[in-house]
Amino acid sequence: MNFRMIGKFLSQILLLEAFFMIPAMLICLNDGELDVAACFLITIGTILVIAGTLYLFGRKANTSFFAREGMICVSGCWIAMSLLGCLPFYLSGQIPSYIDALFEIVSGFTTTGSSILSDVEALSRGLLFWRSFSHWIGGMGVLVLLLVFISAKNSNGFTLHLLRAESPGPSVGKLVPRMKKTATLLYVLYLVLTVLDFLFLVFGGMPVFDAVCTAVGTAGTGGFGIKNDSMASYSPYLQNVTTIFMLLFGVNFSCYYLLLIGNIRSFFKDEELKFYFFTVVSSIALIALNIRNIYATTEETVRHSAFQVATIITTSGFATTDFDLWPSSSKAILLCLMVIGACAGSTGGGMKCVRIILLLKSLKRSLRQTLYPNRVEVIQLNHSPVSEKVISSTNTYLIAYGGFVILSYLLVSFFDGHPPVTSFTAVLACFNNIGPGLEMVGPTQNFACFSVWSKLVLIMDMLAGRLEILPILLLFSPSTWKRT
Amino acid sequence: MNFRMIGKFLSQILLLEAFFMIPAMLICLNDGELDVAACFLITIGTILVIAGTLYLFGRKANTSFFAREGMICVSGCWIAMSLLGCLPFYLSGQIPSYIDALFEIVSGFTTTGSSILSDVEALSRGLLFWRSFSHWIGGMGVLVLLLVFISAKNSNGFTLHLLRAESPGPSVGKLVPRMKKTATLLYVLYLVLTVLDFLFLVFGGMPVFDAVCTAVGTAGTGGFGIKNDSMASYSPYLQNVTTIFMLLFGVNFSCYYLLLIGNIRSFFKDEELKFYFFTVVSSIALIALNIRNIYATTEETVRHSAFQVATIITTSGFATTDFDLWPSSSKAILLCLMVIGACAGSTGGGMKCVRIILLLKSLKRSLRQTLYPNRVEVIQLNHSPVSEKVISSTNTYLIAYGGFVILSYLLVSFFDGHPPVTSFTAVLACFNNIGPGLEMVGPTQNFACFSVWSKLVLIMDMLAGRLEILPILLLFSPSTWKRT
Repeated sequence: MNFRMIGKFLSQILLLEAFFMIPAMLICLNDGELDVAACFLITIGTILVIAGTLYLFGRKANTSFFAREGMICVSGCWIAMSLLGCLPFYLSGQIPSYIDALFEIVSGFTTTGSSILSDVEALSRGLLFWRSFSHWIGGMGVLVLLLVFISAKNSNGFTLHLLRAESPGPSVGKLVPRMKKTATLLYVLYLVLTVLDFLFLVFGGMPVFDAVCTAVGTAGTGGFGIKNDSMASYSPYLQNVTTIFMLLFGVNFSCYYLLLIGNIRSFFKDEELKFYFFTVVSSIALIALNIRNIYATTEETVRHSAFQVATIITTSGFATTDFDLWPSSSKAILLCLMVIGACAGSTGGGMKCVRIILLLKSLKRSLRQTLYPNRVEVIQLNHSPVSEKVISSTNTYLIAYGGFVILSYLLVSFFDGHPPVTSFTAVLACFNNIGPGLEMVGPTQNFACFSVWSKLVLIMDMLAGRLEILPILLLFSPSTWKRT
Repeated sequence: MNFRMIGKFLSQILLLEAFFMIPAMLICLNDGELDVAACFLITIGTILVIAGTLYLFGRKANTSFFAREGMICVSGCWIAMSLLGCLPFYLSGQIPSYIDALFEIVSGFTTTGSSILSDVEALSRGLLFWRSFSHWIGGMGVLVLLLVFISAKNSNGFTLHLLRAESPGPSVGKLVPRMKKTATLLYVLYLVLTVLDFLFLVFGGMPVFDAVCTAVGTAGTGGFGIKNDSMASYSPYLQNVTTIFMLLFGVNFSCYYLLLIGNIRSFFKDEELKFYFFTVVSSIALIALNIRNIYATTEETVRHSAFQVATIITTSGFATTDFDLWPSSSKAILLCLMVIGACAGSTGGGMKCVRIILLLKSLKRSLRQTLYPNRVEVIQLNHSPVSEKVISSTNTYLIAYGGFVILSYLLVSFFDGHPPVTSFTAVLACFNNIGPGLEMVGPTQNFACFSVWSKLVLIMDMLAGRLEILPILLLFSPSTWKRT
């Protein structure tokens, strides 16, 4: 294991994190909350000391960097960022327990949006901003961002390993041949869409601070609200804008690249996009039909249905209404959407639409092979053959997904003994990076009811869900740490 | 599709079914319930007419018989047997709705043990016997039984296809080279164990009729009780005997064959057996620890824990206590056991232990391959390599399993709108052929609360679970019915 090289990356990531804390600190200074600003300053100082030490350690690293290093580097970076990123909450005393603070920031970076806070509005504005902004940092991936700044020469070797470990989806979306350029393109698209969202929100009369927090939370499909009722008290226009942007951020960013280079034909023929669109539209329609007697007008019914479908399938986690009070059939649809999740290569979580498509296609192929055992068939996606390696890694993902969910559910049930629906949907909500579950962790509730041990399990779930399991699983595998 | 050959098989299976109805009819005659006996007679007559017609149709069949025919033959036989086997319940008026009667007999043949009856004891003894005996018929597989009687010459071709489609587990356990002999051996073992169970029960003071019904229900790991409180009112000795025999019937029968031929070493080294044993023992210990404050004595605690673990992991479905009242952590363990299920090649349902082992092994291999992409590794089970075909069919099974459970849960939620735990565990209980679920379908409840449409979905689930999905899935696949 090339620890020096990992240390070097870690120091750079931590520098980025310290840099990202500055706006939050400035907000505190502006609000005259000098004590909270001081907490940010102490945190930044701590980060700089650690980053400096790591830099000295990693200065003379050799460049041998393989899949193993890539995986450990990614999980190491995310864990280190979380352990330090939660310090402002903890030091300021506004979240008095360190584990709670850690839960909150992991929920932020992984764009989950589950909170242990019952009164969000009591938080300082600087901390509120840092909390929402963590969604934006984690959404597109902080290592992807690092690649934007790293020198391009000799870097394609390890950048691929890093991207593969951090990016969502079964195969890495290389938009252009050079990784550095791909990363830059992704971040430019990400920034432009975020700014657009912000402008639409401000145009609708949302205060600037609220609009910034909502826009970055939407962009990362995170879901931390800055109001106790999430988005319920905002105007229908603002809710609809958020619905649309959540759905947009749930689309594979390579589709936007197709649009940018004028390849409209491929855009509209993208199988994942069609699946995503069809799932969204049919879910909205079915739920609207199912809840039509709950709300006064059709507009309200469709608005709430669309918002909740968008927030769940993109795994954002904002809320405009308490869907835990909806009929069972609507809840069943939402539970399924939790598992499906957004498109690969988006900022959303879950299993990803393309994986569902690949799983269904490989099921179909197996059925045909049962009938005609000697026939050889290649699975196609968007008219290109999919390698058997991708198919098998999709199967592995499904196994690991099932195993992780069941094991976490068992542990959480054992530590706390909450009713089955609470424990199970809490695990689903964290693992798929959604935010709210049902019953005791429903959209109007929070995760404070869990014990420290359960919170640690859920923290692991959020990280495993965001990093697509393997990097976290490998942390615990003895063969990772074996000398070769 | 060789319809004539399928017709020929169907006629033979139906003949067997008619033959199996005779004991139940005799019980009715003995009890002086001539009207119920007449219902059996009418059913037998109907079956004979249909079987005769099918025999005439299939007389001149050619012998081309492939995997496709095998699959359709198996699902066709099971559906035909169920459609006709429920007639005595319906004609006697003791289950007035045909769909309810169908649900009951499918639950019987598939060894599920879910019932729509709230007052079991109101049923005639002849019908009670037929209901319990259906577990025994379905447990080891009725087509396997047919192979015992079929002439051995020229039969190895299609018997393999039939066995593969009906036998549980990822690979067919060929005990001895000739299929006919394997089938005979399996049924002799099955019969001997059933008789042993019966003798132990009678020895403990159980009335003969009760002992027969309980023994055949245990042998098939079915779970239909003949008392309203299932097994709760029987003595601790009788409950413990049933616990032990349920666990014995959940073991792969090829392990008993190993014992028979004196290969004790291989028996104790069998990986699936070790996994099964370890899961059972640790679950009993954990649950006993968790429920120690509910029951008066340690003996009672361990007895109830062991019985419920055995009944769930072997997917039998008897009950001695209402585990829906247990703490959440115990319920979580039972839910996991529902999914795991018994060993392959046993009469139990669920995913089967060996599949869990193979899934975990292939996950482990994928992890290592992520670290060392160029390494080639073969998965081993009991020190023999497992073919990639078996691994990939295990993956397919997992996909189909997940898809079936989610789709059924959606449909049942939509048709009836029961709370999530009820709908979800009802689907799990039917699909894994267990019997009871939680809440409204808990061990002291029944499935009468569902609508006709939900019952049809659950009937499909039971059949798909028993036949391991593919034969039922292929019924709905257009490529099955295409001319070649």
